[in-house]
Amino acid sequence: MSEESAPGPKESPLAARQAGSREVWKKGGRLLSVLLAVNVLLLACTLISGGAFNKVAVYDTDVFALLTTMMLLASLWILFYLLRTVRCPDAVPYRDAHAGPVWLRGGLVLFGICTLVMDVFKTGYYSSFFECQSAIKILHPLTQAVFVVVQTYFLWVSSKDCIHVHLDLTRCGLMFTLTTNLAIWMAAVVDESVHQTHSYDSSHSNASHLHLAPDRESGSSVGGDCSCNTAICQIFQQGYFYLYPFNIEYSLFASTMLYVMWKNVGRLLASSTHSHGHTPSRVSLFRETLFGGPILGLMLFVVGLAVFIIYEVQVSGEGGRTQQALVIYYSFNIICLGLMTLVSLSGSVIYRFDRRAMDHHKNPTRTLDVALLMGAALGQYVISYYSIVAVVVGTPRDLLGVLNLAHALLMIAQHTFQNVFIIESLHRGPPGAEPHDTTPKEPCHGLTFANVDALHTLPACPPTPRVVGTNPVGPQEAMAIILAPRGHWRRRCLKDISLFLLLCNVILWIMPAFGARPHFSNTVEVDFYGYSLWAAIVNICLPFGIFYRMHAVSSLLEVYVLS
Amino acid sequence: MSEESAPGPKESPLAARQAGSREVWKKGGRLLSVLLAVNVLLLACTLISGGAFNKVAVYDTDVFALLTTMMLLASLWILFYLLRTVRCPDAVPYRDAHAGPVWLRGGLVLFGICTLVMDVFKTGYYSSFFECQSAIKILHPLTQAVFVVVQTYFLWVSSKDCIHVHLDLTRCGLMFTLTTNLAIWMAAVVDESVHQTHSYDSSHSNASHLHLAPDRESGSSVGGDCSCNTAICQIFQQGYFYLYPFNIEYSLFASTMLYVMWKNVGRLLASSTHSHGHTPSRVSLFRETLFGGPILGLMLFVVGLAVFIIYEVQVSGEGGRTQQALVIYYSFNIICLGLMTLVSLSGSVIYRFDRRAMDHHKNPTRTLDVALLMGAALGQYVISYYSIVAVVVGTPRDLLGVLNLAHALLMIAQHTFQNVFIIESLHRGPPGAEPHDTTPKEPCHGLTFANVDALHTLPACPPTPRVVGTNPVGPQEAMAIILAPRGHWRRRCLKDISLFLLLCNVILWIMPAFGARPHFSNTVEVDFYGYSLWAAIVNICLPFGIFYRMHAVSSLLEVYVLS
Repeated sequence: MSEESAPGPKESPLAARQAGSREVWKKGGRLLSVLLAVNVLLLACTLISGGAFNKVAVYDTDVFALLTTMMLLASLWILFYLLRTVRCPDAVPYRDAHAGPVWLRGGLVLFGICTLVMDVFKTGYYSSFFECQSAIKILHPLTQAVFVVVQTYFLWVSSKDCIHVHLDLTRCGLMFTLTTNLAIWMAAVVDESVHQTHSYDSSHSNASHLHLAPDRESGSSVGGDCSCNTAICQIFQQGYFYLYPFNIEYSLFASTMLYVMWKNVGRLLASSTHSHGHTPSRVSLFRETLFGGPILGLMLFVVGLAVFIIYEVQVSGEGGRTQQALVIYYSFNIICLGLMTLVSLSGSVIYRFDRRAMDHHKNPTRTLDVALLMGAALGQYVISYYSIVAVVVGTPRDLLGVLNLAHALLMIAQHTFQNVFIIESLHRGPPGAEPHDTTPKEPCHGLTFANVDALHTLPACPPTPRVVGTNPVGPQEAMAIILAPRGHWRRRCLKDISLFLLLCNVILWIMPAFGARPHFSNTVEVDFYGYSLWAAIVNICLPFGIFYRMHAVSSLLEVYVLS
Repeated sequence: MSEESAPGPKESPLAARQAGSREVWKKGGRLLSVLLAVNVLLLACTLISGGAFNKVAVYDTDVFALLTTMMLLASLWILFYLLRTVRCPDAVPYRDAHAGPVWLRGGLVLFGICTLVMDVFKTGYYSSFFECQSAIKILHPLTQAVFVVVQTYFLWVSSKDCIHVHLDLTRCGLMFTLTTNLAIWMAAVVDESVHQTHSYDSSHSNASHLHLAPDRESGSSVGGDCSCNTAICQIFQQGYFYLYPFNIEYSLFASTMLYVMWKNVGRLLASSTHSHGHTPSRVSLFRETLFGGPILGLMLFVVGLAVFIIYEVQVSGEGGRTQQALVIYYSFNIICLGLMTLVSLSGSVIYRFDRRAMDHHKNPTRTLDVALLMGAALGQYVISYYSIVAVVVGTPRDLLGVLNLAHALLMIAQHTFQNVFIIESLHRGPPGAEPHDTTPKEPCHGLTFANVDALHTLPACPPTPRVVGTNPVGPQEAMAIILAPRGHWRRRCLKDISLFLLLCNVILWIMPAFGARPHFSNTVEVDFYGYSLWAAIVNICLPFGIFYRMHAVSSLLEVYVLS
């Protein structure tokens, strides 16, 4: 809820005057929808967290019923919105060019398809013992499938809208849909954590620790006396647990797009043709790298996959080889994180010699990207700091402890420097826009005049129109090459760096997303904090860490295209 | 980290141009200091939370050592800052009139004095068994006393500064000091929770629940074999636990002021005389109410004090009367919250007939106030939603269950409507500034021109200077009375409402701050969630609820003065 009453440089003054009477106080409308969202979200959060604890008398049917209701209501609102905007084209006078870029929408569709497959598996799983199951458990994945289809279509066509009718209703509807996605995300994270804990429980069945929800899986989740014994049922169950990460990502992608739409409700833009030349040149997309980055990244990716498979085989096999698996896993991670830290740092160093102007334009999508990168990194920060304290304060210091410490420290360094690099990259202007070109342009076109007389005291504004117009590819490219020949190797370096980081983030995403949990194989933290506390920390924070990798990949793709 | 590149209406364009070369990218400097703060805060958080768990081998001496080091470093930085600004008067070219209002600074001094008393008690307590204690436990309160004195002086003289030298260093210093305050706050909250749990433990010693940290108080906190047996030592111990709420508030007040200073680093203001007429008229401060609100509020305050004392006596006395105490406590709270909800609602209704313009000016202090009100209310929301689920899903429904449910529902309604009322009040312009007076003024003086030519297409701006200038009291007051005679009873009503809400918030602050815990006396939630989960929820969320009351009081005072 930041103060944004001063319209940004892209907002149109005439439109602002006309709209002045229509909405007296923007924050009031926002406040209303945020209050609705907070209350619905807290109710969902209470039920979901209550349902996760085995001793608490909240059943997962309650949670399913709530989620199904929310998804139905959200779908109805979306259909209402689509009908209204189709029948009244004046409702959306402006479109935000930064919102819903094509890779975000593409990712949404991809994850949406995976979620649909997961819903099929879930329906199949629960249908296997239909007799002793409440109907809501089969209704829930079916409703989710409908919701995913409706919402994906809605976000594909409407994510750039700046709507100007029924402002309060639209804000509330968007916030409610956002809340629904967050509730689905929470439910998925909780379900996955319970599954993880159950796996740990069955593999360490002689341990007498306290568990978060040890027999929910075999008890209430399956519902009564039935169990999953047939082969097809087992496949369905395995399958839908492997597809959870995609469902989690789908919900988060949809949430970010809905948030940007919510910020854009009632927003006034000067004209929809001002796209700042951020559209990439399709021709040069894949021929401007030095090939060093992608090749090194691909090598690390392949080695990482091998390490991951070895780790999984050795840890899940019978005992004695966990130690060896952990040494291999940590060694690979330390090398990978160390390289990524160095590469991010060199990227920041290159920016010190870069003369491109900073892009100061208002851009809710970018603001959200930055906030998400910083916020999601907190998850891995927390895990790392708890690891560091456990290793440093704990008494036994062996090879594994040293590796763990190095891993945690490098994890912090890597997240920090990668965030600095990505955030700095996202704030650079388009390539070729050297500061001597843009600096006098910005204060003239994008300035606020507290006093109208002050205008005449300013130096004359250059009357040149923006080169970065509707056709940004040709002249921009040419200018960049002619004016700044040295800039070209910097651009290539930056593209290499972003591709390398992208590939590394993918492999570091695959490992935790598909079940590597050195946090529990390694006994240092479990012994130091006790199982229940450490499981709570890891299960709450790791999903954020996984989301961070995913989000870093999409941001690095943007950096690659823009640099 | 919101996008604020578009300078607000109060920023000076010429100054912005001059400063353009000095700081290329404001967000970069902010990013650096936020990263520092996040890392230090997470380290402190890890150690403090680790120290709170009895089984974990982090001792409270480690925590004290960390806090002492942080306070010493922060004090040194503050002294460096003060020296620098004294020796170089050009360092602070602008002062933000909204930052550090006098009641915030007054509250800071008040809580600072209470914290000093607490430090004396703590030093006395630990000195009672000096022999078997590590030196850091006595060093810690002494360092804290020095830190409180230095910081209170610093915030008193510098809280309005918009500093323009050593931007990055100042940001990092401010963020480090802020982090220190948050760490002190976390340590105090954890210590108080452990104390509460210990009290519960000793009063329910036959219960066999799992406790958060059951014998820390008698064990590690006192350190070894010594115990607190002498009368003076007991007094010291009791005393410093009762003074914790003030220390918690001191840290939070200081944090908010430091945050506003951090936001103001490098900020450019048009001129320091533009104070928007928000200075209250001292003459009319106490003669513009209908006296209904304060009288009803005082009555509720006195009754509330009596209820609180009866509750404490009956609950701490020997058994059987807890039920009766809870019925009295809940009944009073339901009446009080119901009245507050109705009064807040009627305040919002009055605003629907109010023709004063909304104040759209950029104001970091107000933005932070709004964020804190909304954020701190989450604590009470969470507790209420967990209570509602426990009562609705749980089977036994007696009188106490119904009272508990009504209490939780009214708590949510009261927080929501009070927040809406306060936030709307804070965004109103000064009294007498009717919209027909200000609406044409705002778009002309505070507008962004994306295209300079558009200026000539606008209707002529009225060349009248701002009435709300250096001497806002006289003409403003007169105009309000002459132009809007009906506005006067509205103002009186609003003043009454804010005073009534203020007194109610004070009594609702006193009850939990001084130890009323119906959450544990009442067995509904404890039985439903189990002691450890419910204690974790209450101990994490209740400090936010207490802070909310405190913050609402200061905001309502501002509303009273402004309306």
